Amino acid sequence: LYVNEKTMLVKSQVKYIQSLGQKKFRDQEGVFIVEGPKMVRELLDAPNIELRQLYAVREWLQEHPSPPLITATSPGFTELKEGELERISSLSTPNQVLAVFGRPSFPPPVFEKTVSLLLDGIQDPGNLGTIVRIADWFGLRQVVCSRDCADIFNVKTIQSTMGSISRIQVVYEDPEEVIRRHPNLPVYAAVLEGKNLYETGQTSEGLIMIGNESRGIRGELLQKATHRITIPRKGQAESLNAAVATGIILSHLV
Amino acid sequence: LYVNEKTMLVKSQVKYIQSLGQKKFRDQEGVFIVEGPKMVRELLDAPNIELRQLYAVREWLQEHPSPPLITATSPGFTELKEGELERISSLSTPNQVLAVFGRPSFPPPVFEKTVSLLLDGIQDPGNLGTIVRIADWFGLRQVVCSRDCADIFNVKTIQSTMGSISRIQVVYEDPEEVIRRHPNLPVYAAVLEGKNLYETGQTSEGLIMIGNESRGIRGELLQKATHRITIPRKGQAESLNAAVATGIILSHLV
Repeated sequence: LYVNEKTMLVKSQVKYIQSLGQKKFRDQEGVFIVEGPKMVRELLDAPNIELRQLYAVREWLQEHPSPPLITATSPGFTELKEGELERISSLSTPNQVLAVFGRPSFPPPVFEKTVSLLLDGIQDPGNLGTIVRIADWFGLRQVVCSRDCADIFNVKTIQSTMGSISRIQVVYEDPEEVIRRHPNLPVYAAVLEGKNLYETGQTSEGLIMIGNESRGIRGELLQKATHRITIPRKGQAESLNAAVATGIILSHLV
Repeated sequence: LYVNEKTMLVKSQVKYIQSLGQKKFRDQEGVFIVEGPKMVRELLDAPNIELRQLYAVREWLQEHPSPPLITATSPGFTELKEGELERISSLSTPNQVLAVFGRPSFPPPVFEKTVSLLLDGIQDPGNLGTIVRIADWFGLRQVVCSRDCADIFNVKTIQSTMGSISRIQVVYEDPEEVIRRHPNLPVYAAVLEGKNLYETGQTSEGLIMIGNESRGIRGELLQKATHRITIPRKGQAESLNAAVATGIILSHLV
């Protein structure tokens, strides 16, 4: 059991965790970081995600008497002394535990008979994570991100998914390519001047495109849409936050 | 015209702007900070908000040939040289202009014949700002915040409102007090186990309560609700982000 492997935090570990702040190193290692008891617990229980490293204060350990085994290849577990979590955490209020997980494994995505999101250039990590959480709430299975979207394995993004990362498959691919491969699927595009969302019927199959926070959906991509839909506005705000718009659209369409 | 008052950024100005990072000083001065060309422009045009100070790079000035006059009591305008905006900005990518505005003035709030939001302990500044922006999109006029909500004049909150701060009146008051004063208004509470939102009729009058990001609506306050409503879940996410839930609820009820 890993509780026997107790050590203290060493410099090379701090350096390793810090290096994972960069996408390049995260990708190289095939890992991501999760912080806080609730999310770490949820991902420890996820069947398709493998724990690589766990850094926790004694308090967390005592509340989790039967933690899962760490795999043979992993550097294992480190008990943190007071003040050590602050050295590796990227949260403003570090919370008991930080874990490094291998990336979730999924079967190949299937776009038929289900609704999927196509995100075009979502820049804000918090927005991306929140969108994945929304997709999970509404029972979707996959989210396609254009290659210029934020990185799903960014620490901020991961924290905003609130654990949905183990259930929603996020793939980076050209959205046009996905549309091209599925010519029979309806493609909904969220735009500022389209058909009233509330007059659009529900669907159990299709692709829903959400555009970049400021410029919306790229022109070439927008041309592939079969339905242009709009959340009717009653007031004067110029736009809605991308994640909020996604929530409203899914709540109506799905 | 203030373009004649050109100076360079002095230490006391940097200190003043930095002090406004603290609620205490913001409240004392009765001001808030806005950054970026789009939002500054929108607030310069707002009839109920007064400009106090403007810091901009020449590029911004040239694109805004007829800026409004600064009031006589204000320290006025400062043209920034390269690298100076970084010294006062709190954005990760500072953008041309930073303005200090006096707080918006509104007539006393009226809760009859309109829908208002009651926020109970919304902690995240980004969530609060996004909720105000949503309220503006759906044509609401006011948002009541419990006193433990984030500060609406926090820089992050203001940036998330995207300019809606000039149109939505945000008041800090005990939500129970507002309900007590309006005994005839329906009070909707967003909860995890209530009546299906989609089976709840629309309304043109009432109070909609949204709770804290983790604990929801406080028990005593929840007891004052006349309707408990829930966004039905199809997947496995444990909850929805507070701003996203607000958007979905308003899109159905209003």
